[in-house]
Amino acid sequence: MKLAVLGAGDVGGSVLELAGEYGHEVVAVADSTTAAVDEEGLDAAAVLSRKRNRGGVGSAEVEAALSADYDVLVEATPTTLGDAEPGFSHVRQALERDRHVVLANKGPVAERYADVRALEADSAGTVLFEAAVGGAIPVLSTIAGLEGQVTAARGVLNGTANFILSRMAAEGLGYEHVLAEAQDLGVAEPDPTFDVEGTDAALKCVILANVLFDDAYTLADAAVEGIADLPGSALELAAEDGRTIRLIGEVTDGTVRVGPRLVPEHGTLAVSGTLNIVQLDTTHAGRLNISGRGAGGAETASAVLADVGRLPGLE
Amino acid sequence: MKLAVLGAGDVGGSVLELAGEYGHEVVAVADSTTAAVDEEGLDAAAVLSRKRNRGGVGSAEVEAALSADYDVLVEATPTTLGDAEPGFSHVRQALERDRHVVLANKGPVAERYADVRALEADSAGTVLFEAAVGGAIPVLSTIAGLEGQVTAARGVLNGTANFILSRMAAEGLGYEHVLAEAQDLGVAEPDPTFDVEGTDAALKCVILANVLFDDAYTLADAAVEGIADLPGSALELAAEDGRTIRLIGEVTDGTVRVGPRLVPEHGTLAVSGTLNIVQLDTTHAGRLNISGRGAGGAETASAVLADVGRLPGLE
Repeated sequence: MKLAVLGAGDVGGSVLELAGEYGHEVVAVADSTTAAVDEEGLDAAAVLSRKRNRGGVGSAEVEAALSADYDVLVEATPTTLGDAEPGFSHVRQALERDRHVVLANKGPVAERYADVRALEADSAGTVLFEAAVGGAIPVLSTIAGLEGQVTAARGVLNGTANFILSRMAAEGLGYEHVLAEAQDLGVAEPDPTFDVEGTDAALKCVILANVLFDDAYTLADAAVEGIADLPGSALELAAEDGRTIRLIGEVTDGTVRVGPRLVPEHGTLAVSGTLNIVQLDTTHAGRLNISGRGAGGAETASAVLADVGRLPGLE
Repeated sequence: MKLAVLGAGDVGGSVLELAGEYGHEVVAVADSTTAAVDEEGLDAAAVLSRKRNRGGVGSAEVEAALSADYDVLVEATPTTLGDAEPGFSHVRQALERDRHVVLANKGPVAERYADVRALEADSAGTVLFEAAVGGAIPVLSTIAGLEGQVTAARGVLNGTANFILSRMAAEGLGYEHVLAEAQDLGVAEPDPTFDVEGTDAALKCVILANVLFDDAYTLADAAVEGIADLPGSALELAAEDGRTIRLIGEVTDGTVRVGPRLVPEHGTLAVSGTLNIVQLDTTHAGRLNISGRGAGGAETASAVLADVGRLPGLE
């Protein structure tokens, strides 16, 4: 497949680097201000080196990437809330041109799921978004394989918050101290709000709810509580009882909730560090657990490229 | 799809009961001595009641099920070693008739993988066998979705052995005592050899090796050690060191091994009771863990029916 990659951060850059290994070729790439297009296939190293040294992937306008002759648009620009722009417009333009779309960006499928599905219904293109939920963990393809059997999902869907809670519990340290440590390690962003307030986990749960219940949930439908106000004493009390605290997202009975929850200290949901886990309840297959790396450029890019491999051929 | 189900034990019986829920219909079923065929679709309750009361699913010969007009042959007869008969002949007949095959029986894909693939290559039919590895856990479809990225697999692939080891460790009881308890609970067979000697786990690992390395491994290529001779004192020593013992199957670097291994007491591989877990090492997606129910009639049938849903249409 010929790919146009929008967004040249960790994920977009890794898609550019790994596409060839999966038998695909990137013919266009754009960051927020520039683009590079080559219908013979771009040289990943040259593009990424140009971005590092000159601050932009190329000398063309972003629009040139959108109008390139690609089969699949890979949307890996940063997640935005509300109207989910500019990601949503990128998705719309690709579908109107009867092209496939693979999203790593959560915005369009969390905030405007019904609009995306309506555009897809009128298009020859297909929309997939495995990378938007749980990074490298194949959550959505597992749900698809279970053919409507999944009745509820829950899990740890944010590695930053999980790292902080794991360290607070293991070392008896306070939130601010561990957050600073996580920022030094690059596990937390300079502005950690999205992760520690539960927004990122909630967006993933909203996407899960949209897929499981084929409905138009948005972030506004989720009850969300973060971990920024969690006192270290709460973790100590939990430990005395053989339990610990994790930021758990839940999609069940038509509701979406994210918040700190008590879980058994050595239980399935108490994954450590930056790991993510998703637990699926099913009608006949019992409970399935899938854990792995929920973030990271190469890991998330591998989910994007797995989606590309699942797409039907285009006429 | 129209299914012919060979084998009317826990798995075959559950496929019969659940097929309708997945939008399929069973037109033939056979146990070891009799068959029932109805091209309009069999009544699951009537067939299973007949089997309970009269000892056979119907009054026709087994051959009548094999020659019925079905789309997919579901092979759920007991696993046999060596020539993998009669399962292998059932697979051959279906493929020669250009029909699809879905296996819960491990024999043909563990012991005669190259023969099965050769028959498939000459057939319009496709062979799938998710249910043969890890019951309800979608191991093979996850591997397929990872598109050649999986470099090694390991895990707990036998619920009976895991139940025995979990109980020995938790209660400080000896092997013979816990085995008797497991037999009372129906978790272990009256003859537990296949499970406790590691044969069942090894067959699953051989299948994984065949899929991962596209090769013709058989049970003879596996180094297999069971748990029947494991003294309770080994578990006590492990516990003093924060570890426990699990029967671990490993497929890595072209070798297949099954044996009792030390694992961290609260680590990912130390699942409890009858749970199974599979850990996949990948080139770009890090390490993935999938755990769930590795056995059970409905659970395994759900994997069979998920495979049926993945099959391409027949001309």
